[in-house]
Amino acid sequence: MKIGVIGLGLIGGSFALAAKKHLEEVTLFGADNNPEHLKDALQRGIIDQELKNSDYANMDVLILAIPVDSASALILDLLDQINDNALLFDAGSTKALICKKVALHPKRNQFLATHPIAGTEFSGPSAAFSELYFNQTQILCETQKTRPDLLEWAMQFFRSMEMHLEEMDPGEHDQHIAYVSHISHISSFMLGKTVMEKEQDERAIFDMAGSGFASTVRLAKSSPEMWTPIFKQNKDNILEVLKEYIANLDQFKKLLENDDWSLMHDQMKEINAIRTILEGIPEGKNNNKN
Amino acid sequence: MKIGVIGLGLIGGSFALAAKKHLEEVTLFGADNNPEHLKDALQRGIIDQELKNSDYANMDVLILAIPVDSASALILDLLDQINDNALLFDAGSTKALICKKVALHPKRNQFLATHPIAGTEFSGPSAAFSELYFNQTQILCETQKTRPDLLEWAMQFFRSMEMHLEEMDPGEHDQHIAYVSHISHISSFMLGKTVMEKEQDERAIFDMAGSGFASTVRLAKSSPEMWTPIFKQNKDNILEVLKEYIANLDQFKKLLENDDWSLMHDQMKEINAIRTILEGIPEGKNNNKN
Repeated sequence: MKIGVIGLGLIGGSFALAAKKHLEEVTLFGADNNPEHLKDALQRGIIDQELKNSDYANMDVLILAIPVDSASALILDLLDQINDNALLFDAGSTKALICKKVALHPKRNQFLATHPIAGTEFSGPSAAFSELYFNQTQILCETQKTRPDLLEWAMQFFRSMEMHLEEMDPGEHDQHIAYVSHISHISSFMLGKTVMEKEQDERAIFDMAGSGFASTVRLAKSSPEMWTPIFKQNKDNILEVLKEYIANLDQFKKLLENDDWSLMHDQMKEINAIRTILEGIPEGKNNNKN
Repeated sequence: MKIGVIGLGLIGGSFALAAKKHLEEVTLFGADNNPEHLKDALQRGIIDQELKNSDYANMDVLILAIPVDSASALILDLLDQINDNALLFDAGSTKALICKKVALHPKRNQFLATHPIAGTEFSGPSAAFSELYFNQTQILCETQKTRPDLLEWAMQFFRSMEMHLEEMDPGEHDQHIAYVSHISHISSFMLGKTVMEKEQDERAIFDMAGSGFASTVRLAKSSPEMWTPIFKQNKDNILEVLKEYIANLDQFKKLLENDDWSLMHDQMKEINAIRTILEGIPEGKNNNKN
């Protein structure tokens, strides 16, 4: 079978490598706006051939792994061009807009909206690896709108990488992800900004980074090309969570100003429960996973 | 030689294990407010014997690794009791108060103020390991006030663990560390709070945590017993950085509200430079390390 990957960065490149590993008799085609990335992906064997616009109609599966603004701009044109038995799935971090965009397209049932909850702070083909998705969550939206045979193929593909499949409404996805992912990136970027503005002494930052800074600021290395469109598309949800985050920081500042150490202690103790949550919810964990 | 460790958590326990690994003919004595921790440390072989108050005078080295409020409360009493050739060093995350506290003590020159820039989000003896300090920075304050032979012993001990020694003024330390460590913990705690308040659906948090949340919120698992006293002692510096952090978040919120995507992109691009800083400053790296 022929799989085309549009966008050969961490996400698309890792899907290509996983396809090579888990599927038989597969040829990978790839395209990227950046000629260096295309060359790199070919040299690394992430893809076998360049994917040209004229190849779209010959693909069995097309994977769209580019920034969410470009993905929304391109999606209808791609659906127009794919053949009648091809599957097209995207992997963007926002789901409402793209689902709305394709809603009335005659080939809507050949599209599957997905969001693999996986990534690192690195980007480009050199960041891709076949195990990126192993044991990670793959969120699927509006699966009832995808043709059953194409949906089944996609689910088998994701399961071959041992991803955990979760169904979610696109609007709910965007709301949840604003809380659990997008705000983390903003928090991290602003932390990096605060420290860099004040700490002219880069040596001190470097020497002391082991004290927690390195991990909280990791996401501040993320690509602005990828994240600006995400913040734009998920603006309303992000504004809501950002307001709450700032309100919580303001409230913590008041505890500090008022020497309210006992309340501060108790509040942190409560927040420690995040440990239990992150370790997983014992009952649900196996029941709800596909 | 006899080494006594007061506080058998991650920090003290790891010093005890490192001492066993790198020093010859050493007997480790240990004390902890929590009887379970003491028992655990004995069972794990972190220490060889319980350290009783009456043993203080017999120790060659005493390591103080308890929360910074308890450390400040205990330090003068400990200096009173140690013998005339013993070294006492602390390992707290604030340095100004403890240095001020000991300033006029007749045995000031037997004390060394240190801050090992190392840790995990776990606590207690079970979190300790002998390699915690390997390749990490050890900050030393006011070394000119410590007796040269005792300072030399301490530096050899830290170097045996391959720590990188850095001298820093106590006040400057507290200011730097507010930016590079303390604010990261507050950011992380408040992020955990924001998400937990809103996301009643713990399953969604768990499933989506791979998207960056888990790493930015890691520090929210930290011990309130340890951190409340740190925030208290470093209140002024933390308030300053917290105000700047909130101001930066407010400014980012305005960019969102005003659809100022171009400035947002450029700002994130600038913050990406944190990557270079965290990878180390090539020239300085080897020159300034001891």
